Amino acid sequence: MKTETIILKGHIIDSLIFAKVLDTILQVGGTFDISEIDIGKTREDPSIVKISIQAESSALLEKILQAVQPHGAVVEEISDCTTLKAPQDGVLPDSFYATSHLATQVRLKGQWVDVEAIEMDLAIHVQFDPPQATAIPMARVKRGDYIVTGRNGIHVFPLERPKGRDVFSFMEAQVSSERPNKHIIADIAKRMRMIRDNRLKALSQGADAANSELGTKVLLVGGPAIVHSGGRDALSWLIDEGYIHVLFCGNARPTHDMEASLFGTSLGFGLSAGDIAPHGHEHHLRTINKIRGLGSIKQAVESGVIKEGIMASCVRQNVDMVLAGSIRDDGPLPDVITDSVKAQDAMRAALPDVGLALMVATTLHAIATGNCLPAKVPSVCVDINPAVPTKLSDRGSFQAVGLVMDSSSFLKELARELNWSG
Amino acid sequence: MKTETIILKGHIIDSLIFAKVLDTILQVGGTFDISEIDIGKTREDPSIVKISIQAESSALLEKILQAVQPHGAVVEEISDCTTLKAPQDGVLPDSFYATSHLATQVRLKGQWVDVEAIEMDLAIHVQFDPPQATAIPMARVKRGDYIVTGRNGIHVFPLERPKGRDVFSFMEAQVSSERPNKHIIADIAKRMRMIRDNRLKALSQGADAANSELGTKVLLVGGPAIVHSGGRDALSWLIDEGYIHVLFCGNARPTHDMEASLFGTSLGFGLSAGDIAPHGHEHHLRTINKIRGLGSIKQAVESGVIKEGIMASCVRQNVDMVLAGSIRDDGPLPDVITDSVKAQDAMRAALPDVGLALMVATTLHAIATGNCLPAKVPSVCVDINPAVPTKLSDRGSFQAVGLVMDSSSFLKELARELNWSG
Amino acid sequence: MKTETIILKGHIIDSLIFAKVLDTILQVGGTFDISEIDIGKTREDPSIVKISIQAESSALLEKILQAVQPHGAVVEEISDCTTLKAPQDGVLPDSFYATSHLATQVRLKGQWVDVEAIEMDLAIHVQFDPPQATAIPMARVKRGDYIVTGRNGIHVFPLERPKGRDVFSFMEAQVSSERPNKHIIADIAKRMRMIRDNRLKALSQGADAANSELGTKVLLVGGPAIVHSGGRDALSWLIDEGYIHVLFCGNARPTHDMEASLFGTSLGFGLSAGDIAPHGHEHHLRTINKIRGLGSIKQAVESGVIKEGIMASCVRQNVDMVLAGSIRDDGPLPDVITDSVKAQDAMRAALPDVGLALMVATTLHAIATGNCLPAKVPSVCVDINPAVPTKLSDRGSFQAVGLVMDSSSFLKELARELNWSG
Amino acid sequence: MKTETIILKGHIIDSLIFAKVLDTILQVGGTFDISEIDIGKTREDPSIVKISIQAESSALLEKILQAVQPHGAVVEEISDCTTLKAPQDGVLPDSFYATSHLATQVRLKGQWVDVEAIEMDLAIHVQFDPPQATAIPMARVKRGDYIVTGRNGIHVFPLERPKGRDVFSFMEAQVSSERPNKHIIADIAKRMRMIRDNRLKALSQGADAANSELGTKVLLVGGPAIVHSGGRDALSWLIDEGYIHVLFCGNARPTHDMEASLFGTSLGFGLSAGDIAPHGHEHHLRTINKIRGLGSIKQAVESGVIKEGIMASCVRQNVDMVLAGSIRDDGPLPDVITDSVKAQDAMRAALPDVGLALMVATTLHAIATGNCLPAKVPSVCVDINPAVPTKLSDRGSFQAVGLVMDSSSFLKELARELNWSG
Repeated sequence: MKTETIILKGHIIDSLIFAKVLDTILQVGGTFDISEIDIGKTREDPSIVKISIQAESSALLEKILQAVQPHGAVVEEISDCTTLKAPQDGVLPDSFYATSHLATQVRLKGQWVDVEAIEMDLAIHVQFDPPQATAIPMARVKRGDYIVTGRNGIHVFPLERPKGRDVFSFMEAQVSSERPNKHIIADIAKRMRMIRDNRLKALSQGADAANSELGTKVLLVGGPAIVHSGGRDALSWLIDEGYIHVLFCGNARPTHDMEASLFGTSLGFGLSAGDIAPHGHEHHLRTINKIRGLGSIKQAVESGVIKEGIMASCVRQNVDMVLAGSIRDDGPLPDVITDSVKAQDAMRAALPDVGLALMVATTLHAIATGNCLPAKVPSVCVDINPAVPTKLSDRGSFQAVGLVMDSSSFLKELARELNWSG
Repeated sequence: MKTETIILKGHIIDSLIFAKVLDTILQVGGTFDISEIDIGKTREDPSIVKISIQAESSALLEKILQAVQPHGAVVEEISDCTTLKAPQDGVLPDSFYATSHLATQVRLKGQWVDVEAIEMDLAIHVQFDPPQATAIPMARVKRGDYIVTGRNGIHVFPLERPKGRDVFSFMEAQVSSERPNKHIIADIAKRMRMIRDNRLKALSQGADAANSELGTKVLLVGGPAIVHSGGRDALSWLIDEGYIHVLFCGNARPTHDMEASLFGTSLGFGLSAGDIAPHGHEHHLRTINKIRGLGSIKQAVESGVIKEGIMASCVRQNVDMVLAGSIRDDGPLPDVITDSVKAQDAMRAALPDVGLALMVATTLHAIATGNCLPAKVPSVCVDINPAVPTKLSDRGSFQAVGLVMDSSSFLKELARELNWSG
Repeated sequence: MKTETIILKGHIIDSLIFAKVLDTILQVGGTFDISEIDIGKTREDPSIVKISIQAESSALLEKILQAVQPHGAVVEEISDCTTLKAPQDGVLPDSFYATSHLATQVRLKGQWVDVEAIEMDLAIHVQFDPPQATAIPMARVKRGDYIVTGRNGIHVFPLERPKGRDVFSFMEAQVSSERPNKHIIADIAKRMRMIRDNRLKALSQGADAANSELGTKVLLVGGPAIVHSGGRDALSWLIDEGYIHVLFCGNARPTHDMEASLFGTSLGFGLSAGDIAPHGHEHHLRTINKIRGLGSIKQAVESGVIKEGIMASCVRQNVDMVLAGSIRDDGPLPDVITDSVKAQDAMRAALPDVGLALMVATTLHAIATGNCLPAKVPSVCVDINPAVPTKLSDRGSFQAVGLVMDSSSFLKELARELNWSG
Repeated sequence: MKTETIILKGHIIDSLIFAKVLDTILQVGGTFDISEIDIGKTREDPSIVKISIQAESSALLEKILQAVQPHGAVVEEISDCTTLKAPQDGVLPDSFYATSHLATQVRLKGQWVDVEAIEMDLAIHVQFDPPQATAIPMARVKRGDYIVTGRNGIHVFPLERPKGRDVFSFMEAQVSSERPNKHIIADIAKRMRMIRDNRLKALSQGADAANSELGTKVLLVGGPAIVHSGGRDALSWLIDEGYIHVLFCGNARPTHDMEASLFGTSLGFGLSAGDIAPHGHEHHLRTINKIRGLGSIKQAVESGVIKEGIMASCVRQNVDMVLAGSIRDDGPLPDVITDSVKAQDAMRAALPDVGLALMVATTLHAIATGNCLPAKVPSVCVDINPAVPTKLSDRGSFQAVGLVMDSSSFLKELARELNWSG
């Protein structure tokens, strides 16, 4: 029988962490004794528990330790993290530690150091003098980089239930088309107002004056259905009013939007008359060709070719846009980053200070964004298909709130909550 | 080689009827010659075609004739319809003719007679003196009733494409969550206004003054999601404004609605605060019990126990309500018809003069209603799940327009189109 | 500040009960002190915790007590349960206690008594001499019956995590089309084998010889898609081999099955050739009419009219069948119970000794069955639409395992696991 | 009133082309006279019709002509196609003609020339001496290329209903989870056998000996669900038996497959035991890293690191693989083409001689493939979500047969039809 003692600290009772750890030990096949327990008597008091884990083999014990680590379990005997050099450019040492999107520290020379730019499924690159740790994508690692391996000297901080009582305080996505959405949207709107205020404070009084926990940017990740289902006006208004600061999308959504501006259609569907215009996909292609000729979306807006809509609002409001290509794209638009690794880098570069992520009517981009977002960023995934939020949650973004409704209804209700009169 | 000549008349070209008949003959395994053809040169002119069908066996020829009949094909040699007596109460003769929901005539004593109360999947009960024909459900047939058998002397009138260019003129459901819904909703609203005007004319000047083709009633068939998704206020407003005249539902929707009135929750979800009230299903049960104690919904509204909401509006506006029971019901409410055959009869009794059917967020009731509705009644099926309109269409209600969106967004947009300020 | 002390006992740690209670207190708005805690050091040892709850008002305290009761919380000061007489037939006292589907005891004359026939959303009817308690549907209560009210003297026993490591040990439905289903099906098959063995033991050696915890019956609740998607042969085989003992369905599934036997089609789709037979719905209606003429399904099978298929297997194997009507039914078949309250009674009567419930391709019947099943019965909900298992879980049947696949693939894989060679 | 006369020729009656053209004229807002009509009396005889179209303005007439062109309508007065030079690299002339995926000819110097490499949503690049026409993606056009503009001198050949009576002869996707799938799968298997035989003939006797209409390659486009839902063995078998010749996928599916080979898990789900391995996403990342270290999938298989599974079978059977990157990818694998425009080129290069396309459990890759496939290639889209085949059809691939089932059930049933014993 192999044993190891772990320690759990913090709000481990009301955040369900204590229960999950015990549950996990049993699930994976071990047993436990509670060797010490000191439970905080009120919500504010932290608790501390020591748990002695038993397992039939070292391999099983290792498996259990691996499984409880994301819940914040730390082995009692603390040592520095171990590292190995990357053997080639773009290749990690075999035993590299794979990150979660929870806040993480590593122990270097006896000192706990925050891992910068944390994101799920990356490796941790460390430097020793001064001690420094950064999450790094596999494709970006260089031969000889020191990469954290194994599990020692790594501390993961699970999300604690926030004190607020809004929709983001539930911490686990619950997806159902039968839950009322009005108050979820009200909570989103409230947070958008707070972030806008915080941003204005940061701009006028400097970044230090702002609440860094809250963030100063709202990210919208949006699919083409926003335009054809009729959510274009509401979204343009949200951008014009300063509620959106970063936009991720593919090639289709901006094309649909500019097709609406140039031709009054979206994928050939007339937006100002219900019947199908007989142009089918043609306007889509002509729009892309027109913008390619002009060189960029910015140029198209500034030259007056594109007069209104989502892209026009984005250009005017200086929204930070990342257009990522995919193999189904026509054209694509000149602004599209066709290389997926470069597009990921561009998305990552836009994420700092994002305090709310809205992922609307897009599966691919929602999952891609979920992959890059730290768990602490409140996230909402809106889709008419309940499988999309479920998929996002299955991919690890458990913290995203799922909302099952059509994108245009969502954007309109959201804008109305913020006093849109459309 | 067996042959039979059929005749097609009317707007058979632009309504695609001619093409479908030829297609059907080939699909089932026959061949054809066009023996005569006279195509109307403009949209207004009717066409006439004689088609000689060949098949390898009498059985196959019969199969082909059966298949082309719903498209309006009539065999050249016309005879009276054949009939047999029903052998028992509730049992039809083996070879009974099963109706479609298209307008139908039968030939009795050399005379074409309209089949009254046409509806899909029923039998035709005839009387000879005077000649009369009525569609009759299997369970309602009496021993000795004369029932139409075989296929002779029966003329089905396929839908012709209406002249209007609104959403109802497409005649075949196309379901996709990616089509814009704004104009579909505008077309529905327009028709609701027209029906309300027509109804007012009928009420003030007598039924004959009204347009009987247009109808004087709007039917709403609604599921419980209307309440929990937040569409209650919009629907109450539509009823109060006189836009809804018949309501079909089950036990759950009215209970949710009255739970909201009594407790401010719907299935335990607080409607005025986003979090889950800890009452779960209790309020639902207490609501049913309360109404059972009072004897009826009408009594609950008139006694002031239920002050507002969908049911209160229905009682005040004298909306004709049919509540049909199902095996998943709690209680049920005292107004619920628990016997499904009696509930179908009650639904049928409420259908005459319905000029628009809105089926919102309910699969069971939508299909049940589709089964009873003549094809000529414009119908809309709204659901967040695209499988529901598809299923309705698979069940024969091909004319229903499908709309993929959440019910509360639909009702709010519809009410706003009709000048709701909510 | 109002306070009350509650006690939790049992495997409250690894079954997450302790965590959920603390969580619930905070969610509803109270605070707590842990006044005593004694945690079992191993999985086998029970734990005991006393929690002092504080709330700002009596109303809030009551709300908290109500919310923690389903987790097994008992107030320290124990008294008998309170009762009131039912004011009318079919009407409960206003303050009646609404049951959950968890095992429950009430305290009568100082003695804890099991509530018989427990099921969610019912009332508890008690008799005092001798002390006896039974769950009772609202519609079945008689004026003057003693009905439990309030929350005192009621003890709910939450599910504890079973020791087995099969799919049923997870205790909370997780629905995703992306999880592997092979091993879930293997676990189901294993349990079906165990129940069949247990049943044979009960039949040969008497009920006492059997494992009453395991049960002696498998319930299949099935929708019409079983037949048209092609699962008929596999299901018939399962019945013939003695793996299914109770069958719940509506009017459509048995009709489709017997249509296949009589005409080789299901809703007009040829089952032995992929194209659409031109009969549409006709065969469906002729099948119903034929069975109505014969008087019952049993008669149709025994007279040789129906030779093979699901219903034939059921009749031959003496499967206990409940056919419940609904408003979308044609006919219906003579065996269908058209009154929904009577149909519920018939379903309840068939449930004792059910040790596994398989709900396949049906929303309505799955929810109706979930409403009547005690939480301890392992349940599986199979549907191609992930919204169906989610809905079942939303309706309270949290213990049901969800499986997203088409019904025919499920039944074939299940039968193959049990050595079907089809 | 503006008028133009068009001519329709061929099997325009039973392929519904005649009906659709008349319908389209009316829908867009014109009227017509049938100036000449000569209908073939049997299925084999072609028909010819001249239709005089009237419209209120030149713009409307142009719109109508544009709308009827894809149905094969040719204006009576025939002229050469018009062309303009591309103004920049990657930019087309404003009025470029956008292709459909139907067979197309252009008229150059009085001669009708086939457009090579036809595919939807491209432009047509022509050369005059000798006359030659090729479909060209926007991004690949060079400054000065002659590009077809307008609509003159272009002839589109609509699909005619094939003589065969298999599932591919319906020509329009019908998606429903309620249709039987057994015979659709049998038809697919039959075609796979025919293509394999044809391929063997081409290999042994030379390309000219084979049936070029039938094709010599089967394309599988597959998503990651194939592996986690349990379809890996069946697909590997299909490849080993020579039924699959081209494979399109992303980064995830091959990684899942090789993760199964290296670790026995897929995204951390144990494939040989139902419970969740506690490794989560780690194995996924370690697999990618391992293959990156080895340099390629081919190298991983040939060095014996990857011993079995889909990728191993592909390498051994020399299947032509295109792995296209996307922004949600981890790693990615070294074989992944991360640039989307280059990935499209690679897909195009693999398409000649494909005679059947199976798109299984992938939305993105299915649509991308649909974009590149000529309409004449029989296609099947399998997904558990009915929205995926609908979306494919909405994007223009109307000819794809939709099948709503989980991917593993599909692959197993397909393999069993081809005598797999797994």
